[in-house]
Formats: sequence, structure tokens, C-alpha cells
Amino acid sequence: MSEFLWPVRVYWEDTDGGGVVYYANYLRYLERARTEWLRTLGYSQRELAHDPGLIFTVIALEIEYRRPARLDDALLVSCTPRREGAASVSFAQEIHRAQSAAARPGELVASARVRVACVDARSFRPQRLPDFLLNALPKAQEPV
Amino acid sequence: MSEFLWPVRVYWEDTDGGGVVYYANYLRYLERARTEWLRTLGYSQRELAHDPGLIFTVIALEIEYRRPARLDDALLVSCTPRREGAASVSFAQEIHRAQSAAARPGELVASARVRVACVDARSFRPQRLPDFLLNALPKAQEPV
Amino acid sequence: MSEFLWPVRVYWEDTDGGGVVYYANYLRYLERARTEWLRTLGYSQRELAHDPGLIFTVIALEIEYRRPARLDDALLVSCTPRREGAASVSFAQEIHRAQSAAARPGELVASARVRVACVDARSFRPQRLPDFLLNALPKAQEPV
Amino acid sequence: MSEFLWPVRVYWEDTDGGGVVYYANYLRYLERARTEWLRTLGYSQRELAHDPGLIFTVIALEIEYRRPARLDDALLVSCTPRREGAASVSFAQEIHRAQSAAARPGELVASARVRVACVDARSFRPQRLPDFLLNALPKAQEPV
Repeated sequence: MSEFLWPVRVYWEDTDGGGVVYYANYLRYLERARTEWLRTLGYSQRELAHDPGLIFTVIALEIEYRRPARLDDALLVSCTPRREGAASVSFAQEIHRAQSAAARPGELVASARVRVACVDARSFRPQRLPDFLLNALPKAQEPV
Repeated sequence: MSEFLWPVRVYWEDTDGGGVVYYANYLRYLERARTEWLRTLGYSQRELAHDPGLIFTVIALEIEYRRPARLDDALLVSCTPRREGAASVSFAQEIHRAQSAAARPGELVASARVRVACVDARSFRPQRLPDFLLNALPKAQEPV
Repeated sequence: MSEFLWPVRVYWEDTDGGGVVYYANYLRYLERARTEWLRTLGYSQRELAHDPGLIFTVIALEIEYRRPARLDDALLVSCTPRREGAASVSFAQEIHRAQSAAARPGELVASARVRVACVDARSFRPQRLPDFLLNALPKAQEPV
Repeated sequence: MSEFLWPVRVYWEDTDGGGVVYYANYLRYLERARTEWLRTLGYSQRELAHDPGLIFTVIALEIEYRRPARLDDALLVSCTPRREGAASVSFAQEIHRAQSAAARPGELVASARVRVACVDARSFRPQRLPDFLLNALPKAQEPV
């Protein structure tokens, strides 16, 4: 399975008074890449929330911040999913600075592991992943 | 009617790479003051959204930014509501730096006028303001 | 001068508990479009802040919210600048839903007027607009 | 050393279209508690950034999300710091719902471990923690 990459530009809204991207805002970048990866499977989260009434909620994450991203930086966010049981997905994600000429990853900015559970949109109770997603995910024991 | 004031502290999350509060984030401060003013009337927005199914949505605003607020600043946000017809409220709001010793407004940071409509939580169609709110609001033609 | 349009996608980060884009977050969309318009002139704000030490700060804005934008919506943000004196620029901006097939503006979501001043990056004192920007801007009295 | 607790209210700005606090925004709450803990030692981060030119930057974090927080929830954020070498601090932090009557922690919402490095405000190179902070921190091997 080839790696999914999503481009992100750093705007004023993302930076803080230290002149770098505020630490919580990297999580927004990670979520955009997961959302766009899902869209490549042909599904939007608004549709899934409406029918069959499922949303995806982050239950745990780890992130290491390696180098600060700054205003106007062009970044690339990766998204490598793995199935974890029947109701959750684990994403390995990295944020790299884009190399200026090519849209290829350069310096590592941050790396993360994000665990996402599939839940009922109203009750927030765990639900089985929908089939389209189960079929798209390598199992944890399979080589990626 | 005496003026309602709500204290706000500026954190890293609010600032941008220019070292000052990001311009959109002042709108968050304004909304906190409106929410807390409503709470002084004995109502939370979560309850109102559930029963009778009403939410308040901003339909227009004007804001002037006078002086930048910075990290660690203590601010005071005012909230002076006026009734506008049967389904909307207009708030005159100001953000001041708090004077260090007393919790009293100092330099003006920003001033705004915010028009809020009462709508159905599902359809977003205009609804009559609930009685508790109509009764709490001076009419536009009355002196405040 | 033809209209500048910048595409924006609505993510979870932009929405609030009412299921629509939080009212302050439209200001982030407006600022992205202004930033990208500036980039089309060949300038990044990080470079300008470093040399010649200029940043652009919003001094006033008006916005009308016409229809709520929702999760997964594709939006188009316009940006029509006009010179206002020697040290500030006024932007007329609109946010439209993108029409699904073509990347063309559909329903109006919000319209705004944003006044931006050019200031010294350290002192925040007003500065004359740089020449490249003055030359790119129609004067207020000229037809656009 | 007794536990430091900081109260946080959930506003519309914090929620997302799922009706709960957006996962990145819990990191803002965590940072507010760390900032206020530092303030109890008599220091503001703006002063430290100016003289002696130090800022604190998050280098890694882990967080588990246990129960969603919702609009209008009153939360309590804890902050238990430990020294990690000469240039960084590790914070164990929890977010609990406040019990309505007393301002005491109720249900666990999230728990986190946050590693923060002291760096030069310009170069972002690691710096020794200032003495006031070293003296306030229990060493990793000491019982808290």
C-alpha cells in the first residue's frame, strides 16, 4: 500500500507568539490528512454521520515534535492506517516540510500515532467498522 | 442596567506569529462574554439547544481593533444586549485591558457590534426569542 | 482586474457543536485568501516581516453570515483589494459554496469587508505600503 | 506537593460538529493549566521570553481520551510537574469534569503526559531550566 500524503500550508492562524506552529494545531493537520484519506475511499464523514450514523473519534495519541514549522511553510502530512480489532483504526502519521521544487517530503517536523474508534454518532458507543473501511485496512499482523 | 464584564486571560493558543492575539480569536472572547451573560439569566446554551431546541447564531458583526492584546494580558469583555425585533438581539461589546490592581477596564483593545438570531437547532430557521430573554432585554428605543 | 478565488475545505476543526462552521473560523478562511493573493504577487508574509520588517494587521472588519457552511463543504473565498490611503488596504471578500462539478462559486455563505494596515513588525506603527503592493492595487476611485 | 488544579469552561469555540470538544482543543486546556501553574511560581511566560529569553516548547506528548466533554461543561485540569534532566520538565496532567456543587474533580475526561523543553526564544536551542523552576520541581527519582 503506497503512502497517502496531504499538503498543508502554514497560515497566521496556525502560529503562536513564539513564531512557530502552536503545538495543538499539528493535530488539526493530522486530522485533515485522515479525512482526505477517507475521502479517497469514496466517503465523506458528513455522509457517514448521517447514514449509517457513524463517527470516528480519537481515543489516544502520541506525538513527537521534532522541528518547528513556521509561517508560510509548505508541509506534507502522511497517513498510514492499520486495523486494530473490529472497531478501531490506528494511524501512523508524519509531518514533513515539503521540498520546494518537488512535492516530496523533506525534513521531519513531527511524527504521531493516532488511535481512532468508530462510534455511534448519538450515543458515542463503539461500533464495528463499516465494511468499506475494513476491506481497505491491512491487519496489524500483515506487512504494509 | 449595569454593564456585564467577563475576564479573559490571553494564552499561547490565542496569539499568532506577530506576537499578538490573532484577529479571529477576539471573536471567541466576545462569544464567551455573551455566553456567560446568558448564564447569569439562569440558562445554559446546551439546555436551550435540547429544550426548547433553540440556538443563537451570529448573523452579522462589525469589529474595530484598536490596540493589540498580548500573551498573559488580562482582559475584560463587556456585553450590552438590546432587543432587535422578536427574533434577534444586538450586542454592543468592548474588550479592555484590565487594570492590574483592580479588576477594572483600562485601555480599549477592541469594540464590536454583534447581531445574533435565535434559530431552530435543527432547521436553522428563525424563531421568536424565549420569554426569559425578551424580558431581560431593553428595547432598542429605551435608554440603557 | 479579475477576481482572486481560493478554495477551502471545511474540516471537523472548523465546525462547532451546532454542526456548522464556528463564526470566528470564517475569518481564518478570509485571511488564507488574502495571504494567497499576496503570494500571487510574489511575496510571502514571513519574508516581508523579516525584510523590510512589515506586517499587515486587520484594523476593522464587517461580516454578514448568510448561510451556514458545514463539514466537508468545499468553499471558494474571493479577495478584491482596494488601496485606502498610503498605509492601508481594504478587501471586499465573499465566501461561496463551490459548485460540485466546476470549481465555480455557488450559494453565498458570507460577505465581508476587511481593512488591513501595514505596520512595523516590532513597533506596530503604521508604515507606507511597499511599492509592489501600491502598484498592484487599484485606487478607491478607480473602477475595478 | 499538592496537586495544582485549573478550572476551564467549555464554550462553542471548543466543540466540533460531533457535539463534543474537538480533540486538539484539550491540548489548549492542558497548556492553560501549565501556564497558570508557572504563574503561581511568580513568573509569566512573556517576561521569561523577554528576559532571560527563554520559552518552553512541547517536545512530546501522549494523551488518552476517556469520555467526551461537552458544551457548558465545567472542567478541572491538573498539572503535576517532574524534572527530567537539566533542560526539560515532564507534566502528568488530567482533565476531569468538575462536580457541580464543590469545585472538585469528578469523572475523568482525559489523561496526558507532556514533555516540555526549555529553549532559547530565538534559536530554539535547548537551555538549562532557570533556577526558580529547578528548585520548584521534584526530581524524577523523588516521591511526589
